[in-house]
Amino acid sequence: MDTLPLASFIRDIPDFPRPGIVFKDITPLLREPAALRQALDEMTARARRLGPELIVGIESRGFLFGAPLADRLGLGFVPVRKPGKLPFRSVRDEYVLEYGNGVLEMHEDALGRHRVLIVDDLLATGGTAACTARLCERLGAEVAGFLFLVELTFLQGRAALGGRPVEALVAF
Amino acid sequence: MDTLPLASFIRDIPDFPRPGIVFKDITPLLREPAALRQALDEMTARARRLGPELIVGIESRGFLFGAPLADRLGLGFVPVRKPGKLPFRSVRDEYVLEYGNGVLEMHEDALGRHRVLIVDDLLATGGTAACTARLCERLGAEVAGFLFLVELTFLQGRAALGGRPVEALVAF
Repeated sequence: MDTLPLASFIRDIPDFPRPGIVFKDITPLLREPAALRQALDEMTARARRLGPELIVGIESRGFLFGAPLADRLGLGFVPVRKPGKLPFRSVRDEYVLEYGNGVLEMHEDALGRHRVLIVDDLLATGGTAACTARLCERLGAEVAGFLFLVELTFLQGRAALGGRPVEALVAF
Repeated sequence: MDTLPLASFIRDIPDFPRPGIVFKDITPLLREPAALRQALDEMTARARRLGPELIVGIESRGFLFGAPLADRLGLGFVPVRKPGKLPFRSVRDEYVLEYGNGVLEMHEDALGRHRVLIVDDLLATGGTAACTARLCERLGAEVAGFLFLVELTFLQGRAALGGRPVEALVAF
Protein backbone atom coordinates (compact mmCIF):
# COMPACT_ATOMS: atom_id res chain seq x y z
CA MET A 1 0.00 0.00 0.00
CA ASP A 2 1.25 3.49 -0.78
CA THR A 3 2.28 5.77 2.04
CA LEU A 4 0.04 8.80 2.44
CA PRO A 5 1.52 12.20 3.29
CA LEU A 6 -0.14 12.47 6.71
CA ALA A 7 0.62 16.19 6.93
CA SER A 8 -1.75 16.79 4.01
CA PHE A 9 -4.65 15.58 6.21
CA ILE A 10 -3.89 18.19 8.88
CA ARG A 11 -5.48 21.56 8.23
CA ASP A 12 -4.19 24.97 9.31
CA ILE A 13 -6.79 27.14 11.01
CA PRO A 14 -5.44 30.69 11.41
CA ASP A 15 -6.26 32.69 14.53
CA PHE A 16 -7.66 29.78 16.56
CA PRO A 17 -8.13 29.69 19.49
CA ARG A 18 -6.69 33.23 19.59
CA PRO A 19 -5.43 35.79 17.05
CA GLY A 20 -1.91 34.94 15.90
CA ILE A 21 -2.14 31.20 16.64
CA VAL A 22 -2.29 28.75 13.71
CA PHE A 23 -4.20 25.71 14.96
CA LYS A 24 -3.42 22.27 13.52
CA ASP A 25 -6.81 20.69 12.84
CA ILE A 26 -6.53 16.89 12.77
CA THR A 27 -10.20 16.21 12.05
CA PRO A 28 -9.59 15.61 8.29
CA LEU A 29 -7.10 12.87 9.22
CA LEU A 30 -9.56 11.24 11.63
CA ARG A 31 -12.27 11.41 8.98
CA GLU A 32 -10.28 9.58 6.27
CA PRO A 33 -10.00 5.84 7.02
CA ALA A 34 -6.73 5.29 5.12
CA ALA A 35 -5.03 8.22 6.86
CA LEU A 36 -6.31 7.20 10.29
CA ARG A 37 -5.17 3.62 9.74
CA GLN A 38 -1.73 4.69 8.55
CA ALA A 39 -1.28 7.04 11.52
CA LEU A 40 -2.22 4.23 13.91
CA ASP A 41 0.01 1.75 12.07
CA GLU A 42 2.99 4.07 12.48
CA MET A 43 2.13 4.91 16.09
CA THR A 44 1.79 1.20 16.90
CA ALA A 45 5.21 0.41 15.41
CA ARG A 46 6.90 3.22 17.33
CA ALA A 47 5.05 2.34 20.56
CA ARG A 48 6.17 -1.29 20.34
CA ARG A 49 9.82 -0.26 20.22
CA LEU A 50 9.39 1.58 23.54
CA GLY A 51 7.99 -1.54 25.25
CA PRO A 52 5.17 0.00 27.30
CA GLU A 53 2.94 -2.00 29.64
CA LEU A 54 0.18 0.62 29.78
CA ILE A 55 -0.99 3.50 27.58
CA VAL A 56 -1.67 6.87 29.23
CA GLY A 57 -3.77 9.27 27.12
CA ILE A 58 -4.24 12.98 27.76
CA GLU A 59 -7.77 14.46 27.58
CA SER A 60 -9.30 14.71 25.12
CA ARG A 61 -7.58 14.36 21.74
CA GLY A 62 -5.02 12.05 23.31
CA PHE A 63 -7.93 9.63 23.83
CA LEU A 64 -8.42 9.47 20.03
CA PHE A 65 -4.99 7.90 19.50
CA GLY A 66 -4.25 6.38 22.91
CA ALA A 67 -7.36 4.19 23.04
CA PRO A 68 -6.91 2.53 19.61
CA LEU A 69 -3.22 2.12 20.38
CA ALA A 70 -4.00 0.30 23.65
CA ASP A 71 -6.44 -1.86 21.69
CA ARG A 72 -3.91 -2.71 18.99
CA LEU A 73 -1.16 -3.48 21.52
CA GLY A 74 -3.42 -5.46 23.86
CA LEU A 75 -2.67 -3.08 26.74
CA GLY A 76 -4.82 -1.24 29.25
CA PHE A 77 -5.57 2.48 28.92
CA VAL A 78 -5.38 5.14 31.64
CA PRO A 79 -6.92 8.61 31.10
CA VAL A 80 -5.37 11.86 32.30
CA ARG A 81 -8.09 14.44 32.73
CA LYS A 82 -8.81 18.06 33.40
CA PRO A 83 -9.86 18.92 36.97
CA GLY A 84 -13.13 17.61 38.36
CA LYS A 85 -13.74 14.96 35.68
CA LEU A 86 -12.32 11.88 37.41
CA PRO A 87 -14.72 10.45 39.99
CA PHE A 88 -12.32 8.53 42.26
CA ARG A 89 -9.55 9.82 44.54
CA SER A 90 -7.04 11.60 42.33
CA VAL A 91 -3.64 13.20 42.28
CA ARG A 92 -3.10 16.49 40.48
CA ASP A 93 -0.32 18.63 39.12
CA GLU A 94 -0.06 21.98 37.40
CA TYR A 95 1.48 23.21 34.20
CA VAL A 96 2.11 26.71 32.93
CA LEU A 97 -0.22 28.23 30.34
CA GLU A 98 0.16 31.55 28.62
CA TYR A 99 -2.10 33.08 31.27
CA GLY A 100 -2.05 31.29 34.61
CA ASN A 101 -1.80 27.55 35.15
CA GLY A 102 -3.58 24.45 33.88
CA VAL A 103 -4.23 21.37 36.01
CA LEU A 104 -4.29 17.67 35.15
CA GLU A 105 -5.49 14.78 37.28
CA MET A 106 -5.09 10.99 37.43
CA HIS A 107 -6.79 8.44 39.65
CA GLU A 108 -4.48 7.55 42.50
CA ASP A 109 -4.99 3.81 41.83
CA ALA A 110 -4.52 4.17 38.06
CA LEU A 111 -0.95 3.00 37.79
CA GLY A 112 1.62 1.00 39.68
CA ARG A 113 5.16 -0.04 38.87
CA HIS A 114 4.49 -0.19 35.16
CA ARG A 115 6.26 1.17 32.13
CA VAL A 116 3.85 3.66 30.57
CA LEU A 117 3.71 5.38 27.21
CA ILE A 118 2.18 8.88 27.27
CA VAL A 119 0.11 9.65 24.17
CA ASP A 120 -1.34 12.91 22.87
CA ASP A 121 -2.25 14.33 19.49
CA LEU A 122 0.21 17.23 19.54
CA LEU A 123 3.46 18.29 21.18
CA ALA A 124 3.62 22.06 21.54
CA THR A 125 5.52 23.49 24.53
CA GLY A 126 5.46 20.11 26.29
CA GLY A 127 3.74 21.48 29.39
CA THR A 128 0.87 18.99 29.54
CA ALA A 129 3.08 16.03 28.59
CA ALA A 130 5.67 16.90 31.25
CA CYS A 131 2.91 17.37 33.83
CA THR A 132 1.52 13.94 32.90
CA ALA A 133 4.96 12.36 33.28
CA ARG A 134 5.29 13.84 36.78
CA LEU A 135 1.89 12.43 37.74
CA CYS A 136 2.81 8.98 36.37
CA GLU A 137 6.06 8.92 38.31
CA ARG A 138 4.33 10.07 41.50
CA LEU A 139 2.08 7.02 41.13
CA GLY A 140 5.09 4.72 40.87
CA ALA A 141 5.27 4.27 37.10
CA GLU A 142 8.25 4.52 34.80
CA VAL A 143 7.78 6.70 31.70
CA ALA A 144 8.92 4.67 28.68
CA GLY A 145 8.42 7.67 26.41
CA PHE A 146 6.01 10.03 24.66
CA LEU A 147 4.16 9.53 21.40
CA PHE A 148 2.46 12.30 19.40
CA LEU A 149 0.83 12.55 16.02
CA VAL A 150 2.16 16.09 15.47
CA GLU A 151 5.14 18.02 16.80
CA LEU A 152 5.45 21.80 16.50
CA THR A 153 9.23 21.81 16.43
CA PHE A 154 9.61 25.61 16.69
CA LEU A 155 8.18 25.44 20.23
CA GLN A 156 10.97 23.06 21.31
CA GLY A 157 8.67 20.99 23.51
CA ARG A 158 11.16 18.11 23.65
CA ALA A 159 13.33 20.22 25.93
CA ALA A 160 10.60 19.98 28.59
CA LEU A 161 10.47 16.18 28.48
CA GLY A 162 13.62 15.35 30.39
CA GLY A 163 15.56 13.51 27.70
CA ARG A 164 13.07 10.62 27.55
CA PRO A 165 12.25 9.11 24.15
CA VAL A 166 9.88 11.30 22.12
CA GLU A 167 8.22 10.07 18.94
CA ALA A 168 6.13 12.23 16.58
CA LEU A 169 4.78 11.22 13.17
CA VAL A 170 4.47 14.66 11.61
CA ALA A 171 6.71 17.66 12.31
CA PHE A 172 5.81 21.26 11.47
CA MET B 1 -11.83 -17.43 25.73
CA ASP B 2 -14.14 -16.99 28.70
CA THR B 3 -16.57 -14.12 28.76
CA LEU B 4 -15.85 -11.58 31.45
CA PRO B 5 -18.68 -9.96 33.40
CA LEU B 6 -18.04 -6.43 32.09
CA ALA B 7 -20.24 -4.89 34.79
CA SER B 8 -17.72 -6.03 37.40
CA PHE B 9 -15.14 -3.67 35.82
CA ILE B 10 -17.42 -0.66 36.29
CA ARG B 11 -17.17 0.94 39.71
CA ASP B 12 -19.89 2.84 41.56
CA ILE B 13 -18.79 6.21 42.94
CA PRO B 14 -21.45 7.59 45.26
CA ASP B 15 -22.18 11.33 45.31
CA PHE B 16 -20.24 12.20 42.15
CA PRO B 17 -20.41 14.69 40.56
CA ARG B 18 -23.11 15.80 43.03
CA PRO B 19 -24.69 14.42 46.21
CA GLY B 20 -27.28 11.74 45.42
CA ILE B 21 -25.75 10.74 42.06
CA VAL B 22 -24.02 7.35 41.75
CA PHE B 23 -21.40 7.73 39.01
CA LYS B 24 -20.44 4.73 36.89
CA ASP B 25 -16.64 4.79 36.73
CA ILE B 26 -15.40 2.93 33.64
CA THR B 27 -11.68 3.47 34.30
CA PRO B 28 -11.17 -0.05 35.78
CA LEU B 29 -12.53 -1.51 32.52
CA LEU B 30 -10.22 0.66 30.40
CA ARG B 31 -7.28 -0.35 32.60
CA GLU B 32 -7.77 -4.12 32.20
CA PRO B 33 -6.70 -5.29 28.72
CA ALA B 34 -9.00 -8.34 28.64
CA ALA B 35 -12.05 -6.29 29.64
CA LEU B 36 -11.26 -3.49 27.19
CA ARG B 37 -10.75 -5.99 24.38
CA GLN B 38 -13.98 -7.81 25.16
CA ALA B 39 -15.96 -4.55 25.31
CA LEU B 40 -14.54 -3.53 21.92
CA ASP B 41 -15.16 -7.00 20.46
CA GLU B 42 -18.82 -6.79 21.45
CA MET B 43 -19.17 -3.18 20.31
CA THR B 44 -17.58 -4.07 16.96
CA ALA B 45 -19.99 -6.96 16.41
CA ARG B 46 -23.01 -4.81 17.22
CA ALA B 47 -21.74 -1.90 15.14
CA ARG B 48 -21.26 -4.14 12.10
CA ARG B 49 -24.88 -5.19 12.19
CA LEU B 50 -25.96 -1.54 11.91
CA GLY B 51 -23.86 -1.01 8.78
CA PRO B 52 -22.38 2.43 9.49
CA GLU B 53 -20.11 4.28 7.06
CA LEU B 54 -18.71 6.64 9.70
CA ILE B 55 -18.31 6.64 13.48
CA VAL B 56 -19.39 9.74 15.42
CA GLY B 57 -18.00 9.94 18.97
CA ILE B 58 -19.16 12.31 21.70
CA GLU B 59 -16.54 14.20 23.76
CA SER B 60 -14.75 12.96 25.66
CA ARG B 61 -15.42 9.40 26.88
CA GLY B 62 -17.14 8.63 23.58
CA PHE B 63 -13.71 9.09 22.00
CA LEU B 64 -12.38 6.17 24.07
CA PHE B 65 -14.71 3.70 22.37
CA GLY B 66 -15.52 5.45 19.09
CA ALA B 67 -11.91 5.80 17.93
CA PRO B 68 -10.92 2.12 18.40
CA LEU B 69 -14.23 1.11 16.85
CA ALA B 70 -13.52 3.22 13.75
CA ASP B 71 -10.06 1.64 13.62
CA ARG B 72 -11.40 -1.91 13.89
CA LEU B 73 -14.11 -1.30 11.27
CA GLY B 74 -11.81 0.58 8.88
CA LEU B 75 -14.05 3.67 9.03
CA GLY B 76 -13.42 7.35 9.58
CA PHE B 77 -14.11 9.05 12.90
CA VAL B 78 -15.91 12.35 13.51
CA PRO B 79 -15.78 14.07 16.92
CA VAL B 80 -18.71 15.90 18.52
CA ARG B 81 -17.38 18.47 20.94
CA LYS B 82 -18.30 20.91 23.66
CA PRO B 83 -18.45 24.58 22.60
CA GLY B 84 -15.32 26.39 21.48
CA LYS B 85 -13.17 23.29 20.95
CA LEU B 86 -13.60 22.74 17.22
CA PRO B 87 -11.45 25.10 15.15
CA PHE B 88 -13.33 25.12 11.83
CA ARG B 89 -16.81 26.44 10.99
CA SER B 90 -19.26 24.48 13.11
CA VAL B 91 -22.94 23.85 13.69
CA ARG B 92 -24.30 23.65 17.22
CA ASP B 93 -27.35 22.44 19.08
CA GLU B 94 -28.52 22.46 22.68
CA TYR B 95 -29.69 19.83 25.10
CA VAL B 96 -31.34 20.14 28.49
CA LEU B 97 -29.30 19.66 31.64
CA GLU B 98 -30.56 19.63 35.19
CA TYR B 99 -29.71 23.32 35.43
CA GLY B 100 -29.74 25.19 32.12
CA ASN B 101 -28.64 23.84 28.77
CA GLY B 102 -25.57 22.11 27.36
CA VAL B 103 -24.25 22.71 23.86
CA LEU B 104 -22.56 20.37 21.37
CA GLU B 105 -20.82 21.26 18.13
CA MET B 106 -19.73 19.52 14.92
CA HIS B 107 -17.67 20.82 12.01
CA GLU B 108 -20.03 21.81 9.21
CA ASP B 109 -17.95 19.78 6.70
CA ALA B 110 -17.68 16.72 8.98
CA LEU B 111 -20.35 14.58 7.40
CA GLY B 112 -22.30 14.21 4.20
CA ARG B 113 -24.87 11.69 3.03
CA HIS B 114 -23.39 8.91 5.11
CA ARG B 115 -24.87 6.40 7.52
CA VAL B 116 -23.35 7.22 10.90
CA LEU B 117 -23.17 5.34 14.18
CA ILE B 118 -23.19 7.56 17.28
CA VAL B 119 -20.96 6.22 20.08
CA ASP B 120 -20.68 7.22 23.72
CA ASP B 121 -19.69 5.50 26.94
CA LEU B 122 -23.01 5.87 28.71
CA LEU B 123 -26.70 6.38 27.94
CA ALA B 124 -28.40 8.31 30.74
CA THR B 125 -31.31 10.60 29.81
CA GLY B 126 -30.31 10.53 26.14
CA GLY B 127 -29.98 14.31 25.89
CA THR B 128 -26.48 14.44 24.43
CA ALA B 129 -27.09 11.49 22.09
CA ALA B 130 -30.33 13.00 20.76
CA CYS B 131 -28.59 16.36 20.30
CA THR B 132 -25.81 14.62 18.36
CA ALA B 133 -28.35 12.86 16.14
CA ARG B 134 -29.99 16.22 15.30
CA LEU B 135 -26.59 17.68 14.38
CA CYS B 136 -25.76 14.67 12.18
CA GLU B 137 -29.08 14.94 10.35
CA ARG B 138 -28.68 18.68 9.88
CA LEU B 139 -25.37 17.90 8.13
CA GLY B 140 -27.11 15.47 5.76
CA ALA B 141 -26.27 12.17 7.45
CA GLU B 142 -28.53 9.27 8.28
CA VAL B 143 -28.29 7.95 11.85
CA ALA B 144 -27.87 4.15 11.66
CA GLY B 145 -28.11 3.89 15.43
CA PHE B 146 -26.51 4.47 18.81
CA LEU B 147 -23.95 2.37 20.63
CA PHE B 148 -23.07 2.66 24.32
CA LEU B 149 -20.97 0.70 26.76
CA VAL B 150 -23.43 1.32 29.62
CA GLU B 151 -27.14 2.10 29.79
CA LEU B 152 -28.82 3.43 32.93
CA THR B 153 -32.21 1.90 32.15
CA PHE B 154 -34.08 3.68 34.98
CA LEU B 155 -33.51 7.00 33.19
CA GLN B 156 -35.30 5.71 30.07
CA GLY B 157 -32.93 7.44 27.69
CA ARG B 158 -34.04 5.28 24.76
CA ALA B 159 -37.31 7.21 24.71
CA ALA B 160 -35.36 10.31 23.64
CA LEU B 161 -33.72 8.56 20.67
CA GLY B 162 -36.64 8.48 18.26
CA GLY B 163 -37.07 4.74 17.84
CA ARG B 164 -33.67 4.31 16.15
CA PRO B 165 -31.60 1.22 17.00
CA VAL B 166 -29.92 1.50 20.40
CA GLU B 167 -27.25 -0.97 21.56
CA ALA B 168 -25.70 -1.07 25.03
CA LEU B 169 -23.38 -3.74 26.42
CA VAL B 170 -24.10 -3.33 30.12
CA ALA B 171 -27.43 -2.29 31.66
CA PHE B 172 -27.85 -1.00 35.21
